[in-house]
Amino acid sequence: MPFVRIDALHADSARLDALGRAVHDALVETIGIPDDDRFQVLVGHDGTHSTIRYGDYLGVRRDDGIVFVAITMRSGRGPDRKRALYRRIAELAHAYAGTEPRNVFVTVTENASVDWSLGDGVAQYAPSAEPVVDG
Amino acid sequence: MPFVRIDALHADSARLDALGRAVHDALVETIGIPDDDRFQVLVGHDGTHSTIRYGDYLGVRRDDGIVFVAITMRSGRGPDRKRALYRRIAELAHAYAGTEPRNVFVTVTENASVDWSLGDGVAQYAPSAEPVVDG
Amino acid sequence: MPFVRIDALHADSARLDALGRAVHDALVETIGIPDDDRFQVLVGHDGTHSTIRYGDYLGVRRDDGIVFVAITMRSGRGPDRKRALYRRIAELAHAYAGTEPRNVFVTVTENASVDWSLGDGVAQYAPSAEPVVDG
Repeated sequence: MPFVRIDALHADSARLDALGRAVHDALVETIGIPDDDRFQVLVGHDGTHSTIRYGDYLGVRRDDGIVFVAITMRSGRGPDRKRALYRRIAELAHAYAGTEPRNVFVTVTENASVDWSLGDGVAQYAPSAEPVVDG
Repeated sequence: MPFVRIDALHADSARLDALGRAVHDALVETIGIPDDDRFQVLVGHDGTHSTIRYGDYLGVRRDDGIVFVAITMRSGRGPDRKRALYRRIAELAHAYAGTEPRNVFVTVTENASVDWSLGDGVAQYAPSAEPVVDG
Repeated sequence: MPFVRIDALHADSARLDALGRAVHDALVETIGIPDDDRFQVLVGHDGTHSTIRYGDYLGVRRDDGIVFVAITMRSGRGPDRKRALYRRIAELAHAYAGTEPRNVFVTVTENASVDWSLGDGVAQYAPSAEPVVDG
């Protein structure tokens, strides 16, 4: 279910892959999603046709190694679960991709069960009460 | 009003166009938006500089034909309307772009009327009560 | 805190930069964020590998100069603040990038304090009640 966008500067294919695995493994470990529940858009920006801007807000010294992780998921995960997720993303981004924890920027946006269709034109998390008649 | 992002792998210009039309026509038919209420970002990923990851979650057999459709719209559409939307997107993505319904992944994120400015620096859905005095 | 995505057609590096500054300065002036609180993804679409679609909804005459600005921020800003933000984005996009106000399309999506990790794997806006013990 989580739908994840990851944006990084000058990231080659291997780095994008490592970042994607880091975020996914962190979600599996802390939020408890199944391993095959992975839906990600991974984008490396060349700094010309598309790029990233960042500041040192809150005294965090960021640099071009910055990674934006935007997670859309259903509401229902409590604060402690989210804190564990952030910590684990930072740990695994460092372990898998060499990304410094200071460069890991995560946002979560929540929606409802009926806001997901995971294929076949059906709202799997909020099925209709009535039987569906095909044709 | 809906603001739509569509991400697909190895999609050429014609396929992106077909996918964009599929989602738009489905919104017009099921949500009742006007035909000119179309705002979309259509992105084809080359698999190297940017890419997509997916799994077979919920037993749906996805492949590289997968299409992510992320819709932002105002809250207020009920569950049945959303279910009709998902079904119609899957139907039209198949009809227009040859995309298998199993490969159509849709998320909806909702916001409020005041969260939209559709041009001219104005919140068209939530105009100010007071007359605006230009400086 | 605001996390901003800007999408434009055929935008070169200088135009992306100008648009990013316009949105950021507008946020600083109207929402009151610090100057170093800047987190943006700026994307120029070539019209082939990725592109934008738009209509003349609400009678606004848009053209290929259209700019989509998608802002994610914490809830709490009232309607007047948001209206001021939209107005200022349109003004500064015109001043900095020559973008016509009719071509400035803004959406806001809100979340909660605990939905942000601005680096170091921590939820800076919603710190845990207990002291964190490093392992």
